[in-house]
Amino acid sequence: MKALVYRAIGDVKLEERPKPKITQPTDVIVKLTKSTICGTDLHISKGDVATCTPGTILGHEGVGIIDEIGNSVRGFKKGEHVLISCICSCASCEYCRRGMYSHCTTGGWILGNTIDGTQAEYVRIPHADSSLYPIPAGADEAALVMLSDIFPTGLECGVLNGKVEPGSTVVIVGAGPVGLAAMITAQLYSPSVIIMIDMDHNRLNVARTLGAHHTIDPSEPDAVEKVKALTDGKGCDTVIEAVGVPQSFELCQQLVAPGGVIANVGVHGTKVDLHLETLWAQNIAITTRLVDTVTTPMLLKLALSGKLDPSKLITHKFAFKDMENAYKTFGAAAEHAALKVLIEF
Amino acid sequence: MKALVYRAIGDVKLEERPKPKITQPTDVIVKLTKSTICGTDLHISKGDVATCTPGTILGHEGVGIIDEIGNSVRGFKKGEHVLISCICSCASCEYCRRGMYSHCTTGGWILGNTIDGTQAEYVRIPHADSSLYPIPAGADEAALVMLSDIFPTGLECGVLNGKVEPGSTVVIVGAGPVGLAAMITAQLYSPSVIIMIDMDHNRLNVARTLGAHHTIDPSEPDAVEKVKALTDGKGCDTVIEAVGVPQSFELCQQLVAPGGVIANVGVHGTKVDLHLETLWAQNIAITTRLVDTVTTPMLLKLALSGKLDPSKLITHKFAFKDMENAYKTFGAAAEHAALKVLIEF
Repeated sequence: MKALVYRAIGDVKLEERPKPKITQPTDVIVKLTKSTICGTDLHISKGDVATCTPGTILGHEGVGIIDEIGNSVRGFKKGEHVLISCICSCASCEYCRRGMYSHCTTGGWILGNTIDGTQAEYVRIPHADSSLYPIPAGADEAALVMLSDIFPTGLECGVLNGKVEPGSTVVIVGAGPVGLAAMITAQLYSPSVIIMIDMDHNRLNVARTLGAHHTIDPSEPDAVEKVKALTDGKGCDTVIEAVGVPQSFELCQQLVAPGGVIANVGVHGTKVDLHLETLWAQNIAITTRLVDTVTTPMLLKLALSGKLDPSKLITHKFAFKDMENAYKTFGAAAEHAALKVLIEF
Repeated sequence: MKALVYRAIGDVKLEERPKPKITQPTDVIVKLTKSTICGTDLHISKGDVATCTPGTILGHEGVGIIDEIGNSVRGFKKGEHVLISCICSCASCEYCRRGMYSHCTTGGWILGNTIDGTQAEYVRIPHADSSLYPIPAGADEAALVMLSDIFPTGLECGVLNGKVEPGSTVVIVGAGPVGLAAMITAQLYSPSVIIMIDMDHNRLNVARTLGAHHTIDPSEPDAVEKVKALTDGKGCDTVIEAVGVPQSFELCQQLVAPGGVIANVGVHGTKVDLHLETLWAQNIAITTRLVDTVTTPMLLKLALSGKLDPSKLITHKFAFKDMENAYKTFGAAAEHAALKVLIEF
């Protein structure tokens, strides 16, 4: 089969690879119909993710059809259409029993990281019964592939950790795909105001069409004052960090209201400054989270019932054979006004 | 009257001052019977608290007797014994209505900070109806003065923010009076293990007598490994930071388990490093809080019923006329094996 392989820093290529085999009775093999590329895949290709070694097939998002099935899999059968969660879960270790699937002792984020992933014609999914979701034949699979990672990430790490509630004030720093997914799912909880911050004016335009009440370019000198002016001088109850660099985390600390939450979503590669000299008395919380995908059933119900359209974040489509071009486009997202790139098999 | 005044950096002295007067109809004047000194008073005397200007009478903890009463005070009468909360609350602003009394727009921590405090024969208490608690005549007022600040601080900022619950694992960095108050109140929630960390071996001895299961000196090279060994290699569910310096906050980040909380109690004077490059995926929370004193009624019930003995933290007693010596003893706490120093009028 063909597979997109991380070969060395800066080198991802389509290669011929053997089709994966069932290795555990709890595995299934899925034949991909749709996949996509995540910002984390770009981090891997730059050598930023030490757990992912050269030779790994990338990708942790996808929709497909069950092709082969392990002996002890109970919930799925061959030919069924499934959504692949970016998090594999054994459903029985201590962390899984607490709902912290991201820290599953034999799962978690392993696809396209420590084992081969979904940017291939076939993928082996461990712990299939608790790592796949059935989807109806005929569903909009392009939309549903957005539920493998970015929508649960925006919702769990941003909106739920950030305690968005009716009437609250929300600012999201970073209007990339995950920041926008947080913005879309924040609206499920009826906040009074959503402010999006990004230097990319195309992304701010998209944010406004998808429900942002206000958009701000943080390179303008009065960005903090603008947020304060929109929130009675207090700052925001929920500040979602969806970038992952020290400057964006610094800005978040200036935007949080007393009693508020900074919900970190960004993947950080370096330490940041935490201003406890002022924040110690501000009754705030800072949360971090690798997505657990506990909200995937909720998001599936919303998407399948038409209450949520995750496909709005898809800006580009590529055939799987053009995967290398898809990486080039997504890697220069600002230039191409790219959000999510859909990969079709 | 006599009052302990912050005169200049490094200079606190007993001075003659006029007895305070009722200035608002919601005020009362309290004649002090007991007071104490807080670590924050030492910070002020070193010039570390910009909001407190020279000339201020220090102190935000105390028990006394109502001496005069404003026209609109409804809940108290002259001669009644009261506990003074370190936080004054109007009970009607937006923050007070959310239970965030620490951020009361006309109160909060003002005693011995922006207005004259309790280290004096008399003190004016604003918003008396919601800033004082009645106590029965004959109660152990020495014990109850510990409920003005350190017990609600340990409980709210440490134990409750830290989500201590039955069976959870708790480590407290700093075995000073507030760290010990957190340790004592943590036991109300039945954690499976409480580990105390401090470089002062006398304080660790006290911690063991008051319920710590394990004590560790952080200057030993394997301090982190010892905590991991006591917690199945995971670290602790609740990490309470009760020191307030970058090194102690750094240690807390090494001790927190996936899914855990670092509950900051320490008063920090400088920024700290936050290791988001590892913590971003650890599903943790970091909380900060200036005590709201919402748990004072609970603590009063516990103390008055004999379920809690806050007097165990009192190591020294001074007459009010020896206040300057009390400051010297508390300022060299390690040398004198001092925890809380009781001031008797």
